[in-house]
Amino acid sequence: MEPNDDLQRWREALAHDFRNLQDRICSGLEEVERAYGGAAFVEDAWERLGGGGGRTRVLTSGAVWERGGVNFSEVEGEATQALKAQMNTDADRFWAAGVSLVLHPANPHVPIVHMNVRHFALSDGTCWFGGGIDLTPHYVNPEEAAQFHRELQGVCEAHSCGRYQEFKEEADRYFFLPHRNETRGVGGIFFDHLGRDGASREELDALKAFVLDVGDSFLPAYLPIVKANVGRPFEASERDWQLHRRGRYAEFNLVWDRGTRFGLVSNGRTESILMSLPPEVKWTYDHQPGERERATLNWLRQGVDWAGSPR
Amino acid sequence: MEPNDDLQRWREALAHDFRNLQDRICSGLEEVERAYGGAAFVEDAWERLGGGGGRTRVLTSGAVWERGGVNFSEVEGEATQALKAQMNTDADRFWAAGVSLVLHPANPHVPIVHMNVRHFALSDGTCWFGGGIDLTPHYVNPEEAAQFHRELQGVCEAHSCGRYQEFKEEADRYFFLPHRNETRGVGGIFFDHLGRDGASREELDALKAFVLDVGDSFLPAYLPIVKANVGRPFEASERDWQLHRRGRYAEFNLVWDRGTRFGLVSNGRTESILMSLPPEVKWTYDHQPGERERATLNWLRQGVDWAGSPR
Repeated sequence: MEPNDDLQRWREALAHDFRNLQDRICSGLEEVERAYGGAAFVEDAWERLGGGGGRTRVLTSGAVWERGGVNFSEVEGEATQALKAQMNTDADRFWAAGVSLVLHPANPHVPIVHMNVRHFALSDGTCWFGGGIDLTPHYVNPEEAAQFHRELQGVCEAHSCGRYQEFKEEADRYFFLPHRNETRGVGGIFFDHLGRDGASREELDALKAFVLDVGDSFLPAYLPIVKANVGRPFEASERDWQLHRRGRYAEFNLVWDRGTRFGLVSNGRTESILMSLPPEVKWTYDHQPGERERATLNWLRQGVDWAGSPR
Repeated sequence: MEPNDDLQRWREALAHDFRNLQDRICSGLEEVERAYGGAAFVEDAWERLGGGGGRTRVLTSGAVWERGGVNFSEVEGEATQALKAQMNTDADRFWAAGVSLVLHPANPHVPIVHMNVRHFALSDGTCWFGGGIDLTPHYVNPEEAAQFHRELQGVCEAHSCGRYQEFKEEADRYFFLPHRNETRGVGGIFFDHLGRDGASREELDALKAFVLDVGDSFLPAYLPIVKANVGRPFEASERDWQLHRRGRYAEFNLVWDRGTRFGLVSNGRTESILMSLPPEVKWTYDHQPGERERATLNWLRQGVDWAGSPR
């Protein structure tokens, strides 16, 4: 089924908005990089066999971020068996657009961060929004985690479709490594299938406004934490801990992350998908954390009420 | 169903043989380490909630191997849903024993190696042997790959149940990264479910003799390659390439390896399972190999007739 002109225009506008979001985020990050004499994003524009393409933007060996990737993609095509199974659908074709980013800072006192907003549509007429944003400090600073969550809570509260508590709990469940019995970091928000149960055009527009606002909350939620920590000196032992925490990040993405696994088994663009992997990683058998590192591990659990914690 | 005394004794003998195999392999590796003034294995004996346990032996920061792990385990218990699905069975209980190893050398001219031999039994009376051995050079030396394969071919030919060509092709299929369109290395042999279709005790004993011989082929197949290369100097660019190839190794184990994934989703002993991950890894977006590195990539494909290649 070809989308009608009206739907086509709606999708074009959404893709346009996602591209602009990618631009704003890259500009905001580059501004910080510039302040420390660092690197700029390099763009890789690609097309997908079967329909669509994307703009992968990667920042390498920056002063602030050792590696950062901010992707836009807009793809369409036939729904493979893997996609039908994962999406629980019989529809033949799909259309998807979104922005996703992962940043791995150079300084272990600056947290890793991830953000993703996306729209997914099937040829049977169903469509939905999904997304999330979560923070992975190498060393948890409870004040900063609370500040990050309050920013996300504020975005949710500004939209009738934004349910912070529900999305926060969903993030606790999603960003979790069962084989380590650890959360990936201090969480954030995660949501999927918003509007899948037959939303009207008005409702979809409201969801779109929410999702774009989530995207725009990324810089104000994250940059203050970056700026507060990027100048802090660090020791070799702290760098070592950072490399081990990145190992957990790689484990999560390769073993548990639905988006990564789906991309890899469905023949997605591997370099864009695995851009989320850290530039350098260490694994040590039975690694023994020090005292401060154990304090961080104690925070890596589900159900911490960050936004409600005392200021 | 409790195994009868006879079966119990057969299993004890098998576990005993596997433990001795682990001992022989560790001694052989330590002898090489000692020759270069290096490290020894440290043992972690563990018990499994629900039944059984193991001896995890890890060598860290050796002169030859940056990390090596040689595990023995003998576990039993209730078959979980995940196990029933993976094993395609309704049986309630299982028993399993085996030896597995992965070695990550310090010198990029020395290949990574993996070996695994195992026996699996279900309470419905079915049981089988499985295993494999494969070589992952950072730089492929076709002569050495051929020599490695001929050693494995020799072991197969010494046993009526050893079918080199079939097991070699199975390794080509198994040790493959679809998302990179690359084999993990130059392959080896891989087999599973040997004897599952109702082998007699004599047939099981013949399979056991084959599998133990595969285990004992590890040192003669691998050590000559180690000794020929461990003294070779290497440059920073070769170390860098090694770290990137280790990234592929981590991708294979975390995304595709059935044993690793099964262990992680079925609540296995994480540290013993992930001992296979490399000690240090690099991922670079759209990494560009040099000329010699491209030559290696050209060998990383299925269907190379290593054993039959000209001497």
